[in-house]
Amino acid sequence: MITLATDFGNPYPAAMRGVILRRTDARLVDVAHDFPRQDVRTAAFWLREVLPHFPPAVHCAVVDPGVGTGRRALVVRAGDHALVGPDNGLLLPAARRLAGDGADGRGDGDDEADEDDATGAPAPGIEAFAWRADDPASSTFHGRDVFAPAAAAVHEAGVEAIGELDRATPVDEVVDLRFPAPDRRDDGADGEVLVVDGFGNVITNVPGDALDGRDAVRVNGEPYPVAPSYAHRDPGDALVMVGSHGNVELAVNRGRGDEAFGVGVGDAVSLRF
Amino acid sequence: MITLATDFGNPYPAAMRGVILRRTDARLVDVAHDFPRQDVRTAAFWLREVLPHFPPAVHCAVVDPGVGTGRRALVVRAGDHALVGPDNGLLLPAARRLAGDGADGRGDGDDEADEDDATGAPAPGIEAFAWRADDPASSTFHGRDVFAPAAAAVHEAGVEAIGELDRATPVDEVVDLRFPAPDRRDDGADGEVLVVDGFGNVITNVPGDALDGRDAVRVNGEPYPVAPSYAHRDPGDALVMVGSHGNVELAVNRGRGDEAFGVGVGDAVSLRF
Amino acid sequence: MITLATDFGNPYPAAMRGVILRRTDARLVDVAHDFPRQDVRTAAFWLREVLPHFPPAVHCAVVDPGVGTGRRALVVRAGDHALVGPDNGLLLPAARRLAGDGADGRGDGDDEADEDDATGAPAPGIEAFAWRADDPASSTFHGRDVFAPAAAAVHEAGVEAIGELDRATPVDEVVDLRFPAPDRRDDGADGEVLVVDGFGNVITNVPGDALDGRDAVRVNGEPYPVAPSYAHRDPGDALVMVGSHGNVELAVNRGRGDEAFGVGVGDAVSLRF
Repeated sequence: MITLATDFGNPYPAAMRGVILRRTDARLVDVAHDFPRQDVRTAAFWLREVLPHFPPAVHCAVVDPGVGTGRRALVVRAGDHALVGPDNGLLLPAARRLAGDGADGRGDGDDEADEDDATGAPAPGIEAFAWRADDPASSTFHGRDVFAPAAAAVHEAGVEAIGELDRATPVDEVVDLRFPAPDRRDDGADGEVLVVDGFGNVITNVPGDALDGRDAVRVNGEPYPVAPSYAHRDPGDALVMVGSHGNVELAVNRGRGDEAFGVGVGDAVSLRF
Repeated sequence: MITLATDFGNPYPAAMRGVILRRTDARLVDVAHDFPRQDVRTAAFWLREVLPHFPPAVHCAVVDPGVGTGRRALVVRAGDHALVGPDNGLLLPAARRLAGDGADGRGDGDDEADEDDATGAPAPGIEAFAWRADDPASSTFHGRDVFAPAAAAVHEAGVEAIGELDRATPVDEVVDLRFPAPDRRDDGADGEVLVVDGFGNVITNVPGDALDGRDAVRVNGEPYPVAPSYAHRDPGDALVMVGSHGNVELAVNRGRGDEAFGVGVGDAVSLRF
Repeated sequence: MITLATDFGNPYPAAMRGVILRRTDARLVDVAHDFPRQDVRTAAFWLREVLPHFPPAVHCAVVDPGVGTGRRALVVRAGDHALVGPDNGLLLPAARRLAGDGADGRGDGDDEADEDDATGAPAPGIEAFAWRADDPASSTFHGRDVFAPAAAAVHEAGVEAIGELDRATPVDEVVDLRFPAPDRRDDGADGEVLVVDGFGNVITNVPGDALDGRDAVRVNGEPYPVAPSYAHRDPGDALVMVGSHGNVELAVNRGRGDEAFGVGVGDAVSLRF
C-alpha cells in the first residue's frame, strides 16, 4: 500500500500515480492533494494525525517549496511504515507518531517542544535515509520524477529492507519540524492555533484534558460554553470542545469557528477558567 | 467493495480509509467528499441517484450534523447492498432505490411523498439495524470512529449476515427523508428544485415525461424551448430538458441554469404549456 | 487498468465508477475530474502530458460540450493503450504521444502544427473506431451511459482486440486538435500560453531548449531572470524556467505567474535575448 499526499491539486498527482503503477501493483490510497500550497507545517500536522490510522504502508508526501534546490530527498522508516518526501520537516511529526505504537492511531511519541525548528537526529525508533534519485527529468516536479519512483522502489523492497537499497544512505541529521507546546497553568492554558480545517474549526495545540470538568471557559478574554459536540449548541452558536485530534478546538455549530473567534493559524489562544 | 461519501472535504476521509484498510482489504471507491456541508437532503438525493449504479457493496455515507448527540448509528440492508451512516434520513432514499431492482440503476422504488419527513418503518425490502459502536475516540468524528469500523465489519461479515452481528440490533423505526412530489396538471406541473449541480443545472422533482411531445414550456411564467441537450442551443442560451436523473432540468448551454432561471434549492418551479 | 478524466466535478464520476465496476474488476485510477468545464483544449493538453506516464491502460476521458448531438463516440488504439471519449479532438494529442514510445513518458510524437484544428486521419500508429452504444439512458450524461460501458468493454476485450468488437467500426477521419507551434528565432521565440496550472504557472508552447545557456530573457518586452526552479528566487519574485512538461514556463516563487506576467490561455508570449 502506498499513500499519496501533496499540495498539487489536479492533475499532477495523476502523473505520480502513473509513474508508481509502472513499477508496482501496490494499492494506491489518496490522503489529500489540496493541502495549502507550500505550507509544510500544516501538511505535517495532517500527516501526523491521519497516517497512524493506516496499516503498514509507504507514505509518499510532497509539499516542497524547495524543489530544485539542494534539499535532499528523504526516506524515513518508522516502525512498519516508510515515509518518502523532501527533507524539510514534513515527514518528521508523522514519523514520530508512527514510531510509537500506532495501533490506536495515536502512538506514544510527543513531538511538541518549545524549541524552534532545527536540524537534528530524527528521534528514537526512526531511521532516516538520503535517497539518491536518477537525474530527474524536471527541476520542478520531483513528486513525479523523484518521490514517486522512490516510493515504488521502497514498496517493492519492503520497509525492512530500505537500508539494503543502493540508493538509500543512512543519515544522522534531518530537517526537523516541531509544533509549539502550550503553557499549561492552574487556571487554564496559553496555546496557539495549529490549523484551521475546512469546516472552519480552529484546532489548537492545547490537549483536550485541559477542559476536564469544565462547562465554560474564557477564550482570549471572552466566555464560551464547553460542549461535547457541535449540535449541543444552537446553529450559529460558538463552543469550545475537544476535537477529533484530542486537542481543544474552537467551533460554531453549522458555522465557522475561525470567523467567530477571530483567530487564524499561529494566533495565540489563552484559555482561562 | 466499500464506497465512501461525506461532506468532510480533505483530509478527514483519509482517516476513514486508513481505519477501514486496517480491517479489510476491500476495494474502496469514493462517491464524493464535497457534498454541501451538513446538508442531509442534498446528499440523500445524490446517494439515491449514484449508488444504484454500483454492484453489490457496502456504502458508508456520513453527512451528520447531529454527531455527538444521541442520534443512532444505522446499518441498512437493501437488496444485495448495505448502507452505513447516521440515522438522520440520509440513507433511506438510496435504500429504497436499491431495494427495488437495481439492475438498471433505477429500481422500482418511489420515495416521493407529500408528507413531511417523519420517523417510520423504513420500507418494504429494507431491514434497518441500530449499530452499537465501541465508545468512540471522539464525539465529533464518527466517520472515523464509528462508521468506518462499522462498514468494515459489515463488509467482512457479508451483507446477508448483518443480523447475526452482535453489534446490530434490528429496529422498526428510522428517521426518514422523502422528497416532495410534484403536482401534475393537464397543462403542466408544479414542482420544486431538488438540487443544483456543479454546472449550475437545476434539477427539479418533475418527472421528465411531463415534457413529452413539447418543444416549449413556460417556467415560472417565462417561455423557454425544450431541447434534448445543451448543444442544441447556442452558448449562453437557456433550455428546459430531461436530465440524466430522468427529471426536468433547467439549464444553459455552457452556462449556469440556476442564474438564468433565478432559482435555487427548494424554490417553486411551475411548468405550463 | 482504467483511468478516468472528466470536467464533471462530483459526484457524477462516481456513477461512472459504479457502471464500470458492474462490468469489470479493473483497477480504476483518477486522472482529474476538475478540468475547466467544457474546455476540450486544456483537457487535451493535460491528457497528453499525464497519460504517457501510465502503464498500458484504457483511458476514459470525457470533456464533451457536444453531448447529445450527433458527435461520435470514439475508441482510439495507440500502442498498448486505448482511449475512449467523444470525437471532438480531446483524445488525439494524448494518442499521438502514446503511439510514440511511451517508455519515458514522452514519446516521439509531435502534435504541434501551424494549421488550425481539422478533421483528418488520426496519425501514424493510431487506429480509431466509432463506438456504437446502446441507446443511452440520457442525452446529457454519456460519461455514464456511453463511455463508461465502452471503457469497460474495451478493457475486458483487451486493447489488441478492439477491432473484433461488434460495436467498434474503424474510421479514417476523426476530429483533430493540435496545439500551435511556436516561431523559433535566432534571438528568441514567439509562442503562446497553452495552459495555466493551479499554482498559476504559465505553460507556454515554446520548448525549454530555447532557454539553453541563458540566464535572462525578455518576456513581452520586460526582462526576467532564467532560473532552474522557484526557490532560486526570493518569495514573490518572478522567473522564467523550463517546466515539468519540458516547455518554457512563467512563474513566481510562492506566487502566481499568470498574475505577475499578466497573461492567460491563448495570449502571445514573445521571448527575446
